[in-house]
Amino acid sequence: MKNPQVKIVGAGLLGTSLGLALARQSVTATLEDQSKANLRLAIEYGAGVESGPEPDLVIVCVPPDLTADVVIAQLQKHPQAIVTDVASVKSKIATEVSAALPTHSHRYIGSHPMAGREKGGPSAARADLFFARPWVITASEQSSAAAIDLIRDIALRLGALPVELSALEHDQAVALVSHLPQLVASLLANRLNLGSAEQLGLAGQGLRDTSRIAASDPQLWVQIVSQNSHAIAPLLIQLKADLEHLSESIANIEKSGSLAQIHGILQGGNSGVARIPGKHGGKGNNFQVVTVVIEDAPGALASLLTFIGEIGVNLEDLNLEHSPGAPIGLVELQVLPEVAERLSEQLTTNGWRLV
Amino acid sequence: MKNPQVKIVGAGLLGTSLGLALARQSVTATLEDQSKANLRLAIEYGAGVESGPEPDLVIVCVPPDLTADVVIAQLQKHPQAIVTDVASVKSKIATEVSAALPTHSHRYIGSHPMAGREKGGPSAARADLFFARPWVITASEQSSAAAIDLIRDIALRLGALPVELSALEHDQAVALVSHLPQLVASLLANRLNLGSAEQLGLAGQGLRDTSRIAASDPQLWVQIVSQNSHAIAPLLIQLKADLEHLSESIANIEKSGSLAQIHGILQGGNSGVARIPGKHGGKGNNFQVVTVVIEDAPGALASLLTFIGEIGVNLEDLNLEHSPGAPIGLVELQVLPEVAERLSEQLTTNGWRLV
Repeated sequence: MKNPQVKIVGAGLLGTSLGLALARQSVTATLEDQSKANLRLAIEYGAGVESGPEPDLVIVCVPPDLTADVVIAQLQKHPQAIVTDVASVKSKIATEVSAALPTHSHRYIGSHPMAGREKGGPSAARADLFFARPWVITASEQSSAAAIDLIRDIALRLGALPVELSALEHDQAVALVSHLPQLVASLLANRLNLGSAEQLGLAGQGLRDTSRIAASDPQLWVQIVSQNSHAIAPLLIQLKADLEHLSESIANIEKSGSLAQIHGILQGGNSGVARIPGKHGGKGNNFQVVTVVIEDAPGALASLLTFIGEIGVNLEDLNLEHSPGAPIGLVELQVLPEVAERLSEQLTTNGWRLV
Repeated sequence: MKNPQVKIVGAGLLGTSLGLALARQSVTATLEDQSKANLRLAIEYGAGVESGPEPDLVIVCVPPDLTADVVIAQLQKHPQAIVTDVASVKSKIATEVSAALPTHSHRYIGSHPMAGREKGGPSAARADLFFARPWVITASEQSSAAAIDLIRDIALRLGALPVELSALEHDQAVALVSHLPQLVASLLANRLNLGSAEQLGLAGQGLRDTSRIAASDPQLWVQIVSQNSHAIAPLLIQLKADLEHLSESIANIEKSGSLAQIHGILQGGNSGVARIPGKHGGKGNNFQVVTVVIEDAPGALASLLTFIGEIGVNLEDLNLEHSPGAPIGLVELQVLPEVAERLSEQLTTNGWRLV
């Protein structure tokens, strides 16, 4: 397929990242943004240029609330172009576009590259943002095959994994795996406002992980939640029912049956979390962890990793645990199971301390 | 202080870790466990020996449900010894001990080293488990000063950070920062059981983090929740009220005021999560992140870290992001703000690619 002429509207995190990723594929996008500063920054980063030929593809990367209007405007402005967007809710936009421009809606294909960062704006952009991430394509019955092919091709070239779903299927899926976790984390973190500093001082990794995404942008999330309220509302009703049962069981802990109910929710949590596919796309990752103690000094980690490189072992993942003022740190090395034993042996033989 | 004679009852994760940590301090603990296999494993690991002189200190490391009974038995068996435990709920045990043995309860001091792993058993034990973790000491009015000093001394020698709270204060704090997050994660993960594999395939890091601790042992958590139901119940009632407001606002999204309510919860989540002290014990960590692109090959990370060591920069934390089959990996280096700029410059000058 010859390189399409791409126009990106909105030079925030996603738009700029798309421009950078396309540039690596020798596609120079034209960029547009209402903010002159954003636009200039994105261009300086190398995400594209300010003007170019008539586009084959327009990718709308503006906040969810504005997406439908901008998609409609772009369909009108570029009567030959395919138009897509990257908003995280799809049905509402599709309905608005097809109501406004029924004879043009075959040129609109919704998409949702499931990538993001807690930081926003062009300066947080990364060319590899889409790498190995699902890229949901929500075609409708009106969508032309050529348009779908074009989006799938772009997704694949950026290293993403195209997934075709209807807009409704997509919205129900993200309500469960993205919007519900966001609201749950916010509800939990909201409770911390009443805790004392002394109480919060006892916080461990469990609370940190469970509440991390509560730091997300409320403005953006109000828009997402509004647009997907139909899919989110039933999930909240189910969650509320579970919480009511749990709350009653705990308040009436002496009554028979209450422990079984609490156990049921905890066990349901076990089976639910086990259903999430692993970080590396499989059904849970199969790496083995080898934990090494190192001195907390410049070069200590390097000398460990030099050794690992010398014995030809490739690390799949690495995590450094380092306590304040501690003379040592712990390095968790994740490796393929077939090399774990050799790695442990050679480390021990060469004087490294394992835990 | 001369080395105390320590006896550990229960050779699971915590008991064995305590034994290993004490061994590093030249204290050889005697170990006891109902399971011969656990006991033998813990001894083989070097966590202690099977018999020794009359103890000065008994540390009870059995499941929460059994703790009070075992503490009482140990107080009776060793009439000169100080007895403590490591259970994660303190008031109920203290009440039971003082009711059963009113004239001996000055020798019992509750403690809660806030350390743990998702894995259990002696084979998961680590000598540094308590390092830089809070170790809550819950003395009562009956507790002798000598007993409190002994526990504080042990905690400090194992690198933990002693915190003195009443049993009630402790239980209220852990209800908020540990028990509530556990239940919230379980409630969320429980909802995933109704999701399809296709929906779960779209899961990202947000869901993974929010639900991670839902993998915890239901049996253990039923015990913890039962013992701390008084402190947990009011938190669940508050959470339920928040969830009801949120759920109504989302179901009635067209009504005026509903967006403000949703925004309020999300913003409350922002401020709540910001109150959690940073990983390194401060008020949020102030490290700066420098992200470097490396090849996914043995030795690539080592050569980066060798370079960082050579220029004398100490890493505070490191995170490796590595996508399946990707030719590159991203290394997030966390460093003190004062060295971040120099690090970035020297990396760039020497041909490293930053993002």
